Amino acid sequence: MIGRLNHVAIAVPDLLAGVAVYRDTLGANVSQPQPLPEHGVTVVFIELPNTKIELLEPLGENSPIAAFLEKNPAGGMHHICYEVEDIVAAKARLKTQGARVLGDGEPKTGAHGKPVLFLHPKDFTGTLVELEQV
Amino acid sequence: MIGRLNHVAIAVPDLLAGVAVYRDTLGANVSQPQPLPEHGVTVVFIELPNTKIELLEPLGENSPIAAFLEKNPAGGMHHICYEVEDIVAAKARLKTQGARVLGDGEPKTGAHGKPVLFLHPKDFTGTLVELEQV
Repeated sequence: MIGRLNHVAIAVPDLLAGVAVYRDTLGANVSQPQPLPEHGVTVVFIELPNTKIELLEPLGENSPIAAFLEKNPAGGMHHICYEVEDIVAAKARLKTQGARVLGDGEPKTGAHGKPVLFLHPKDFTGTLVELEQV
Repeated sequence: MIGRLNHVAIAVPDLLAGVAVYRDTLGANVSQPQPLPEHGVTVVFIELPNTKIELLEPLGENSPIAAFLEKNPAGGMHHICYEVEDIVAAKARLKTQGARVLGDGEPKTGAHGKPVLFLHPKDFTGTLVELEQV
């Protein structure tokens, strides 16, 4: 069912410091910061030849990554996103397998404007998994 | 400097349970388990079209992932590996930038038989980073 690894998201307390690490220390191409107020984060994309890394900084009140950064003040890997061709079929398969989808279980529009689901870390090897229809 | 994302490593307390999640729930291709006693882990590879996920289970005493699993008993993302063309040049660049390489700072032979370095999470957005020469 899952296809490409779309991205790994790393939550950081200080986006510019994270940019400096990836641009200057690791020599990667890093995009300009993009505020996504409807998702409660500001994001930069690190474009690798085969996939991308997203650095996420909290934006505004009730950011979905605020609690993670309280537990991990230096930052850390927050979630991993796999591509699927059909998010409705994916949801049906997950339900059959007894795996929990977060929220009300219905696909939402993700940060890339495409339908996404987030899956319960306890059902996925302790890892927050996002599925994105591409 | 960094090139492709070589793999994301996820530490798990129970490899077969992790295999079931990726094979049955997420419908991915999962390799047979490979014990790597010299690295203190048993590994399976999840082959995605553009990269791979490695599930790691502790093997033997003093496994390098034992402490991580004590803190994260359900498992979780343990490290991320980026490819570099020249590990000696990478090490020199890191030193110039003041970033810390773990251990004695010299490349070691990694789980894929290639030279690797591990970088200090505190210098890399809270994330344990492996660099592998390919």
